[in-house]
Amino acid sequence: MTYSESSTKTITADNGIEYAYRDNGAGDVPLILLQHFRGNLDNWDPALVDALATDRRVVAFDNTGVGASTGATPHTVHEMARDALAFVDALGFAQVDVLGFSLGSFVAQEITLIRPDAVRRLVLASSAPQGAAGMHGWAADVIGAVGQPQPNPQGVLGVFFADSDTSRQAGMQYFGRIASRTSDRDAQTTWATRIAQYDAVCDWGVPNNALLERVSAIGVPVFVANGDSDPMILPHYSYLLAGLIPQAMVKIYPDSAHGFLFQHHTEFAADVHEFLR
Amino acid sequence: MTYSESSTKTITADNGIEYAYRDNGAGDVPLILLQHFRGNLDNWDPALVDALATDRRVVAFDNTGVGASTGATPHTVHEMARDALAFVDALGFAQVDVLGFSLGSFVAQEITLIRPDAVRRLVLASSAPQGAAGMHGWAADVIGAVGQPQPNPQGVLGVFFADSDTSRQAGMQYFGRIASRTSDRDAQTTWATRIAQYDAVCDWGVPNNALLERVSAIGVPVFVANGDSDPMILPHYSYLLAGLIPQAMVKIYPDSAHGFLFQHHTEFAADVHEFLR
Repeated sequence: MTYSESSTKTITADNGIEYAYRDNGAGDVPLILLQHFRGNLDNWDPALVDALATDRRVVAFDNTGVGASTGATPHTVHEMARDALAFVDALGFAQVDVLGFSLGSFVAQEITLIRPDAVRRLVLASSAPQGAAGMHGWAADVIGAVGQPQPNPQGVLGVFFADSDTSRQAGMQYFGRIASRTSDRDAQTTWATRIAQYDAVCDWGVPNNALLERVSAIGVPVFVANGDSDPMILPHYSYLLAGLIPQAMVKIYPDSAHGFLFQHHTEFAADVHEFLR
Repeated sequence: MTYSESSTKTITADNGIEYAYRDNGAGDVPLILLQHFRGNLDNWDPALVDALATDRRVVAFDNTGVGASTGATPHTVHEMARDALAFVDALGFAQVDVLGFSLGSFVAQEITLIRPDAVRRLVLASSAPQGAAGMHGWAADVIGAVGQPQPNPQGVLGVFFADSDTSRQAGMQYFGRIASRTSDRDAQTTWATRIAQYDAVCDWGVPNNALLERVSAIGVPVFVANGDSDPMILPHYSYLLAGLIPQAMVKIYPDSAHGFLFQHHTEFAADVHEFLR
């Protein structure tokens, strides 16, 4: 069973939200995937999920208000983290590995701070610590490219892939892979979700040097990763995270941008396996 | 003329201190070397200085009170930076590149903050920002190994080189190279210098998250480098610096420790040339 073929399931948590999710692979400690700004279940690259699911259980889900999940998308990362934990609790997982990507990586940090004993290991892809200077609301051309009401594939391509032939080609292949699923596709994320998520991103990015200390409380091993040309969340912030988190390793992938984990799906999945092992 | 053969010169600065220095190579913007805890002119690996001096002017000196320089070693990094600038002024350099190693890298940061227009580019080897948590006074076994009144080559070997056959072998070769100079050797650093420098190191390492913001004012390009197994200043802090300094690149050298720049002298010198070019 590949990610593109796996059915979308639902489960209702104690907070009353019915969460949509897809559950692939098998293993003791599941790996929970936390998605990027405006992304739903169909935005996970099936090539990446399949590579991750070769020797572990991988669970992707829509957080509250996103895609096919019910409820209203909250406006803060903290509330998103509590909602994600409600989903984890609903599935009965006592401990999980977490892979957060972009906005999802902010939620992943917050989950680990809220409930440290629920997280075994943490992967932060295209991430930054709350309060780091220079990332408030993203650069104008970045939010211009991915923040419009109508889908803008060229805009996504320019943010998620680097300005090189190889990376743009990888981007076109990624678009092909996420379009390959023809039945049981997820619901599109709404404008209300876009508004709420961008509020959360801006709140996270308000410069506040004092908040940098928060991630020093993350006691689990962390793998921080990014593309070397990410215009949305600069690689700079990966170094900052790796310098603030006591047990962190960092890797910057060449010739890639925000979507480095899709472009380099084989290498990244191998690095994640090595890290989680 | 190699570093091992170059004569030791002296110059008296406006602060009344007579500084001992060695001046090798030739070029427009000189590269000033700032030495580690208890190190004098003879502790610079001649293989590294010679590799750096192939296409630029490289000036190593004893700061105030160190080795053959006169005066009393100050007890703070800030005063050491002002003294280093007095030396730079005495030689009439309007702008310099700076390579600071360990304690010297703290001084290098401070120089760049005190007088930004005097520094063109900055190399920080085995470095950490002031106020970073977890480095106050170094680990007990580290200061135990290098902080005793009598020289302890085994202690230095254990801090400057990694716990592998290749690295220890490189360490023995380094000891051989710095011992090769037979005439005009520098004066030994004194116990008073050791006391004062360790005061400065401890002062720099008092944990204070608010001080991390200081290095964000460093506007010049910075190359941050360390060995992957440095027990004195963990590689962790190189990532922190690279995340806090706006224009920083970072490289962690394999199978090496505090003295990575001596062990990997050819590769490190090539990286420095590439960065300064």
